[in-house]
Amino acid sequence: MPGLFLTFEGPDGAGKSTQAGKLAVALAEHHPLVVREPGGTDLGERIRDLLLHRPQGMSAVAEMYLFMAARAELLETRIKPALAAGRVVIDDRYHDSTVAYQGGGRGVAVDWPPHFPKPDLTILLALPPQDGIGRLERAGKSLDRLDAEPLEFHRGAAATYDRLVKEEPERFLRLDATAEPERIHQQVMERVRKLL
Amino acid sequence: MPGLFLTFEGPDGAGKSTQAGKLAVALAEHHPLVVREPGGTDLGERIRDLLLHRPQGMSAVAEMYLFMAARAELLETRIKPALAAGRVVIDDRYHDSTVAYQGGGRGVAVDWPPHFPKPDLTILLALPPQDGIGRLERAGKSLDRLDAEPLEFHRGAAATYDRLVKEEPERFLRLDATAEPERIHQQVMERVRKLL
Repeated sequence: MPGLFLTFEGPDGAGKSTQAGKLAVALAEHHPLVVREPGGTDLGERIRDLLLHRPQGMSAVAEMYLFMAARAELLETRIKPALAAGRVVIDDRYHDSTVAYQGGGRGVAVDWPPHFPKPDLTILLALPPQDGIGRLERAGKSLDRLDAEPLEFHRGAAATYDRLVKEEPERFLRLDATAEPERIHQQVMERVRKLL
Repeated sequence: MPGLFLTFEGPDGAGKSTQAGKLAVALAEHHPLVVREPGGTDLGERIRDLLLHRPQGMSAVAEMYLFMAARAELLETRIKPALAAGRVVIDDRYHDSTVAYQGGGRGVAVDWPPHFPKPDLTILLALPPQDGIGRLERAGKSLDRLDAEPLEFHRGAAATYDRLVKEEPERFLRLDATAEPERIHQQVMERVRKLL
């Protein structure tokens, strides 16, 4: 497809939405579509509510499929049309999150289904597993059901992210999330400019 | 697992719930668990509502994953524990429905994921695609979003069911849904007795 599909990954608290916003402003002339998962559609927001705010939780496999259902709806109704129109799409979390959190965090067998196109570039904002939650708490943000999982869950996700970077080094740009936000943005722009 | 996992498939209006009920009564001494999909759990009923009663519909892939999410929750919280306890489980629709309707009906690539155990026996109540809806209407039942799809959708599902029977003849018992309900029940019991 003629557009450019960019995704941000990493733990909550790593600065993904900050960087997605900076990137959108810098690419304003390309009419970027900025979305975040799960959500971004009417159906997706209803699924997001089931996923993040049910205190009783759910089985790990159901959780995986709910994330994928919300993703499929976002892809079909917003991301693919934007890419087909030649726009830049910036997605705050995508299927790598499901591979990392439901796969690496919960131990579910997660594959990459044929329905989900691979991003042109995935920016991983890497942070030690224990630091993301601390950042959220210091910022006064409320923790959702997944943020509140034990450290082991977040460690499994972080290890999976690092494995994915090794498996697809050309798709991933792994950056230290503890660097200054403006410095991170410059590194992102340096790489994105080559793709435009 | 020590229990027996029985599923009913076929179009709405073929008599699946009637036959599931008759089977449950006949197997009462085995403390059968009777469930129907999508649903059967708190999460699953919320997903069912999204699937069947949203007039605006959704993308085909999102629909597939929502059915699978509801199924995963039902499996983990009710079906697997019942099978582990040696009970008979009778499920009115299971993953063959997703293969038939989202796969054959909508053309989505649907596989059988490792998270879903295969049933010990699947009873297909076969009916010409146009007849199921007519039966529902004559019975004064309201049509859900999937019932109301064009005939082509129901034809694709029926053809897929027939392909599945050919691929796994030992798992399937294909019966003519236009026969007398009591006669169908006798044929089901004949086969189930051999499995008990």
